[in-house]
Amino acid sequence: MKKYHLSEQELPRAWYNVLVDLDEPLPPVIHPGTGKPIGPDDLAPIFPEELILQEVAAGPYATRFVPIPDEVLEAYRLYRPTPLIRATRLEQALGTPAKIFYKYEGISPTGSHKPNTAIPQAYYNKKAGTKRLTTETGAGQWGSALSFACSIYDLECKVYMVRISYQQKPYRRTLMEIFGANIVPSPSPDTQAGRKFLEEDPNHPGSLGIAISEAVEDALQREDTKYSLGSVLNHVLMHQTVIGEEALKQLELAGAYPDVVIAPVGGGSNFGGLILPFYREKKERNLSTRIVAVEPTAAPSLTRGVYTYDFGDTAHIIPLVKMHTLGSTFIPAPIHAGGLRYHGMAPLISYLYEKQEIEAIAVPQTAIFQSAITFARAEGIVPAPEAAHAVHAAIQEALQAKESGESKTILFNLCGHGHFDLLGYEKFLRGELEDFEYPEEEIQKAISELPKVEA
Amino acid sequence: MKKYHLSEQELPRAWYNVLVDLDEPLPPVIHPGTGKPIGPDDLAPIFPEELILQEVAAGPYATRFVPIPDEVLEAYRLYRPTPLIRATRLEQALGTPAKIFYKYEGISPTGSHKPNTAIPQAYYNKKAGTKRLTTETGAGQWGSALSFACSIYDLECKVYMVRISYQQKPYRRTLMEIFGANIVPSPSPDTQAGRKFLEEDPNHPGSLGIAISEAVEDALQREDTKYSLGSVLNHVLMHQTVIGEEALKQLELAGAYPDVVIAPVGGGSNFGGLILPFYREKKERNLSTRIVAVEPTAAPSLTRGVYTYDFGDTAHIIPLVKMHTLGSTFIPAPIHAGGLRYHGMAPLISYLYEKQEIEAIAVPQTAIFQSAITFARAEGIVPAPEAAHAVHAAIQEALQAKESGESKTILFNLCGHGHFDLLGYEKFLRGELEDFEYPEEEIQKAISELPKVEA
Repeated sequence: MKKYHLSEQELPRAWYNVLVDLDEPLPPVIHPGTGKPIGPDDLAPIFPEELILQEVAAGPYATRFVPIPDEVLEAYRLYRPTPLIRATRLEQALGTPAKIFYKYEGISPTGSHKPNTAIPQAYYNKKAGTKRLTTETGAGQWGSALSFACSIYDLECKVYMVRISYQQKPYRRTLMEIFGANIVPSPSPDTQAGRKFLEEDPNHPGSLGIAISEAVEDALQREDTKYSLGSVLNHVLMHQTVIGEEALKQLELAGAYPDVVIAPVGGGSNFGGLILPFYREKKERNLSTRIVAVEPTAAPSLTRGVYTYDFGDTAHIIPLVKMHTLGSTFIPAPIHAGGLRYHGMAPLISYLYEKQEIEAIAVPQTAIFQSAITFARAEGIVPAPEAAHAVHAAIQEALQAKESGESKTILFNLCGHGHFDLLGYEKFLRGELEDFEYPEEEIQKAISELPKVEA
Repeated sequence: MKKYHLSEQELPRAWYNVLVDLDEPLPPVIHPGTGKPIGPDDLAPIFPEELILQEVAAGPYATRFVPIPDEVLEAYRLYRPTPLIRATRLEQALGTPAKIFYKYEGISPTGSHKPNTAIPQAYYNKKAGTKRLTTETGAGQWGSALSFACSIYDLECKVYMVRISYQQKPYRRTLMEIFGANIVPSPSPDTQAGRKFLEEDPNHPGSLGIAISEAVEDALQREDTKYSLGSVLNHVLMHQTVIGEEALKQLELAGAYPDVVIAPVGGGSNFGGLILPFYREKKERNLSTRIVAVEPTAAPSLTRGVYTYDFGDTAHIIPLVKMHTLGSTFIPAPIHAGGLRYHGMAPLISYLYEKQEIEAIAVPQTAIFQSAITFARAEGIVPAPEAAHAVHAAIQEALQAKESGESKTILFNLCGHGHFDLLGYEKFLRGELEDFEYPEEEIQKAISELPKVEA
């Protein structure tokens, strides 16, 4: 292992706004009621103006590089720059001629890349006079990141946590409470949407789609409250590009450049964060960099979904977006990489995949835990199950290089540590972990239930 | 928050061996059978020669600075140098004129300072031909550190884990298994000592003292096996001085020097690791640096114990040492800072306390959790309950400085993160945490049961 540290002075001063570099604008976002494209005003009740402008690259944000505000840089410095590490001990263990680098986002306060966008979202809300933020969380990575960010800017934070996770992951809840947030199990009696599901079943286990509906409804009810989303949207991916920008500088220190860039994909935020700056370089410098998204076989939205308009939430409150999706009725199997259990994919990532700018593979969870353990024994870091998807793909690439004798440089995103995911490891070590592969009929059925919308 | 990073090249190349700087040698170690001082040969069945020589500062180790072997440096680089951080956001939150610095050891693979000695211990054993190491663990910090170190040097590792922790902390066990170790609940049927306690009670909850007896007995049975201890001993504290040596260099970068140096004490290893280099500087440069040990009121060996010979284990297999102790029959209350629940104290730290070179205070656990939450909200890091003892004392010093208007520089050891200790936080947030303060009669009773040994 060799670390490439940047000093605090070398922290990137701008996010990369890929929207202005695309050949064509992304397909418009559609109003769930009217079926017509929405404008910034439609989003004003749930997001502050600056985030809406960032979302559509308008006004001061119709620019390639968006300056990171000083107040955000100051909070980023609590954990950034994160290290770029050459996995020399893993290379030796695999006996590969490949060079393996990873960007380690697990050193953030809540253990993943999520604070990279939680901090600016809380900041722009504070600036706009918001007093209170609502959000949803499943596995808890996003909820704890937003709780932390709200504690920095002294905002109230209410997290609707999927009930089954609320019960099974009390420590994630505790982490959010340490940072001062207010957590309720979803469905909750606090919203109309929640009450409806509780009437059906007082012990309803909840879902991410329901929790999103509740958090948005809550924000719509109160003048002082806005809503915050941890993935999928363009502004979220833009905030995450600080990962890739740092990695570019650090690779220069290492005197290396990747032939292949790998990251896990769920909603698309850690993937976009690492790869978008490398996508820019690939285009500008006419490189042949391969960019690989790794998704779980339990939620194969890129490899088996379709590119169409779909809902992001269960109560259909939020606008429709064009994305790779398995249909909002598709419930991904309960794998341990909870952060990748989403039926859809960021519109931006879906677009790049459609344009064949990126590749995608799907991997079952027993394979990723096996690779995670190989990695932990060599490098000393226990990966989050989400991050382990990238670990697995990187190891496969390195083993292929060993077979072909090719000297190849691999970069992947180790987007979080697994300290809160040891139950998954325990089950794997006991041989109790199941894989999930869906029969084609099941995928087709979910897809057939997609809404019929054309922009 | 401002971080002071050292490059890998600036990693200290030597440990500080305080033994050669003391005015007099430490009192001899006594054989439990003969009551006579032991020699290096008595220790040969359980420790490799080089660690025995380090323990008594003999042979090549009768020197002030002990070179760190290259192979150990290479493994240290998996996580070292660790950052020194100025807690600017905490200073602001407290409104104190004091400067607060902390050394953050939580970024190690297992989340605490313990790998600093686990790595060299595994290395010297490997070099001596040992194939297998045994040890005990309570809360699991030490067991996971040794498991990790053994995975680096390809040694078998067997951990006797106090049964009650084995049951209550399955994730710590999983972490050790990820690194390839073999874990058994103690008392176990694998040793004579274990079988004896199991006969008394098949569901015996175990204790650290019993687990030590089992691990040592195991090592004595097998030619290829040695034993490893994670605190108390001189060579362990010496390995930990890499913490203080780094901190000295980093403070120079910060242009600061501490008026007071603070660390938690249980067995004494993280405390010794930070403070011994500052003790050296204090002596050499005639400084007035205050050095403060913070112990829990539930195990007040420095503040309420006596300085005398005592046993370290329950079955009385291992030698007696002269130390501050509450007596080996004293069972510290079940506080969440499991790493500080020990009836005795490192002989070296006990000696310095006796010579009034260091101060000590005892703090109840509700106070330390309150301070830990203040710290987490300001600095983003959730401290381990052990580390929170130092956080609490540092905050008290900073508030005193605020009252007196004094500008004071404070350094403390944040020896680990609390990711595996969120149950303690949950109980604190629910108001369910108890404090433990012992009536004087109880302390006196335990002390009256101490063995009568004079060297």
